[in-house]
Amino acid sequence: MADAPYNKAGRSNWAVNQDRLWDDLMALGAIIEPDKPYTRRSFSPMFLKGRDYLSRRFEEAGLAVSIDAGGNLIGRLEGTDPKAGTLMIGSHSDTVPGGGRFDGVAGVVAGLEVVRALKDAGIAPRHSIEVTDCLAEEMSEFGLSCVGSRAMTGSLEPAMLDYTGPAEESLRDAITRMGGRPEAIKAEARDDIKGYLELHIEQGRVLESEELDVGIVTTIVGITRIEITISGLPDHAGTTPMDLRKDALSGAIEVVGGIRDKARALAAAGEGYFVATTGEFYLEPNAANVVPGKVKLVIDTRAQTRELMEQFLAFAKAELPALAAGQGVEISELKILSDSLHTECDEGLGDLLLQASNELGLTSKKMTSGAGHDAVFFSRITPAAMVFVPCKGGRSHCPEEWSDPDQLAAGTALLFETLRKMDRR
Amino acid sequence: MADAPYNKAGRSNWAVNQDRLWDDLMALGAIIEPDKPYTRRSFSPMFLKGRDYLSRRFEEAGLAVSIDAGGNLIGRLEGTDPKAGTLMIGSHSDTVPGGGRFDGVAGVVAGLEVVRALKDAGIAPRHSIEVTDCLAEEMSEFGLSCVGSRAMTGSLEPAMLDYTGPAEESLRDAITRMGGRPEAIKAEARDDIKGYLELHIEQGRVLESEELDVGIVTTIVGITRIEITISGLPDHAGTTPMDLRKDALSGAIEVVGGIRDKARALAAAGEGYFVATTGEFYLEPNAANVVPGKVKLVIDTRAQTRELMEQFLAFAKAELPALAAGQGVEISELKILSDSLHTECDEGLGDLLLQASNELGLTSKKMTSGAGHDAVFFSRITPAAMVFVPCKGGRSHCPEEWSDPDQLAAGTALLFETLRKMDRR
Repeated sequence: MADAPYNKAGRSNWAVNQDRLWDDLMALGAIIEPDKPYTRRSFSPMFLKGRDYLSRRFEEAGLAVSIDAGGNLIGRLEGTDPKAGTLMIGSHSDTVPGGGRFDGVAGVVAGLEVVRALKDAGIAPRHSIEVTDCLAEEMSEFGLSCVGSRAMTGSLEPAMLDYTGPAEESLRDAITRMGGRPEAIKAEARDDIKGYLELHIEQGRVLESEELDVGIVTTIVGITRIEITISGLPDHAGTTPMDLRKDALSGAIEVVGGIRDKARALAAAGEGYFVATTGEFYLEPNAANVVPGKVKLVIDTRAQTRELMEQFLAFAKAELPALAAGQGVEISELKILSDSLHTECDEGLGDLLLQASNELGLTSKKMTSGAGHDAVFFSRITPAAMVFVPCKGGRSHCPEEWSDPDQLAAGTALLFETLRKMDRR
Repeated sequence: MADAPYNKAGRSNWAVNQDRLWDDLMALGAIIEPDKPYTRRSFSPMFLKGRDYLSRRFEEAGLAVSIDAGGNLIGRLEGTDPKAGTLMIGSHSDTVPGGGRFDGVAGVVAGLEVVRALKDAGIAPRHSIEVTDCLAEEMSEFGLSCVGSRAMTGSLEPAMLDYTGPAEESLRDAITRMGGRPEAIKAEARDDIKGYLELHIEQGRVLESEELDVGIVTTIVGITRIEITISGLPDHAGTTPMDLRKDALSGAIEVVGGIRDKARALAAAGEGYFVATTGEFYLEPNAANVVPGKVKLVIDTRAQTRELMEQFLAFAKAELPALAAGQGVEISELKILSDSLHTECDEGLGDLLLQASNELGLTSKKMTSGAGHDAVFFSRITPAAMVFVPCKGGRSHCPEEWSDPDQLAAGTALLFETLRKMDRR
């Protein structure tokens, strides 16, 4: 049954149960802060209520439920071969403030559904299977994202445990409050995981615009954030003639245009995925009757390869100052706020996913993820790969976030078939 | 003595006393909110302390001191001809928050010094002379500027008295608190003023850059404020390829550039003073990892003639939408927030000022004021004109605001000589 070809007319051929998957998602979409659709922030009481629901469903599926040292919720099915190690399917159940019902939790519920489908099919896998709800994947109030996946993979620096959040609580205490044991994080870093799969909504419009069923992620972009300050003079907007101005905004628009045009050129060059966004923009003094004296902006740059990122950084340092100078103002500061390398997903797992996708009759493409995910940290210790499912209009991190039940089921079916192939390797 | 030529080597030839003028200005510059240089907001207890100082100096100069119905502080010297009417020299002693020591109060102290110089010279003018500290010229906490000059000239609409400020106080009650009688404003609107002069710092760099002693204001600009909203889609900054974006900022920078380039062209055309400033700029959601979905900006436009303003408004309505559309986004709203006509100063008074300036050996130019002043309202009821003195770097509305003592004395000497000519007409 597991290798049965996908049939558009009869998705009853799928091992996974679309309705069961959907019902769990909608149930979790109701466990949210009142009047704040759809908010279930990490470390909040509502987050723990969501986990109560997940734990109950894990147990009903025959999984042994535990919280690990880093505060991750794990449902475990023992494999028939104690020496085979663990295959993990994970993602996260926390949301951004005012987020949606799919980003994160869809991947956890998909993992749960895969295990239920194994059970339904009477399959006893050789590897142990773990379904994991990683703690705090979204940027938390402690100034850190991917808290749980960092912890599990040995990537949580001890100093991070001292980060403080609301009411001066330390991240250490917050993990304890979630049921974790911070003091044991280092000792319990995992070395038994033989592969990691994660399903996630795409959060973009590529799959939708190309009418594809799934995306197979080969690379997760590197992200570099640059802060640029453009300085002019905050003169009176009425009494300063146009030719005597040093208008920081006038320089800033040239800088923003230069960034945009360079990003478009790099993206169109065919050397890999590249985007650059000026998403934060602050004017000083931001008063109608004062010529802007200063503009501060933050550029978020994401590249599939380091070479693309280096090309952009070289451009920014070499060319942007002249664009400001052309308007009589200057770039007074250009600061790299953060700079993370891209992550290559496991090529062998990518090939397995493509093979399974073809067997299921799904349309797919190998693609780059423009967003970070827990898979970044798992890829440091085990072959890791991701499956993207389309989402409506590419909308994400907002209440309008949406994937259709059959889109989610198709991605979950792909997880199921691929896990079976991994188990047989 | 009054018509003695100006002599660079011997400014003792001036009728006005530079040190006495400067000492009063510095004394008032010390009557400010603690640790907030140089703040003396209208309607505040500190503002009343400043007026206490002014009242004392008015009395010492032999002026009869009163507060009129609109809360203006007036020092009056009776003329020898009761039928001649009144010549007024005025400005304001209130400041913006974090303002300087010259904007406003320099004009009041200059008026006081002119009267003292008349007395010193033994001159008894035919007209009565009034030195006026107009109430709340700067935008007040009641959402209104030029409160006192509006009141005195019959331009304060009755409904404005109901405007509320801090602690829900009405403007009516606030004027009463300043010693005014709001109920008498309408009845006591002035019809005896035969001319109005106002000295003010330029608040720009024109005089400084052309190394001129004084500016003779012929026109005070009309001011039109326009709010433009540019709407795109707030997509994920990582997962939305460059060619699938509807980036509101990308459209906004084209709009801002179009406004700037049009303003430069109009200013350079030689048809009159024109400036346009994009001074307020708001991005939504203004987050590094989200493509800007919306930009709201406010354009402050100032023109010497209505024709120039109409040319700009026609450009904005006709051309800006295409600049946004070229980036795949739209101008979802273009709203005129306010639209005031320019004010022509009195031509005869301007000629008198130029004549006196030449006689004093001062270098001068006729110019347009890019900022609004109390003179706007006086010009509705009487011949009014303004004298600008240079200020360092054009800085104004900030603690660095500065004019040299001899620059202020030169402008005050010009007031003195011009007032004498007016008195003889």
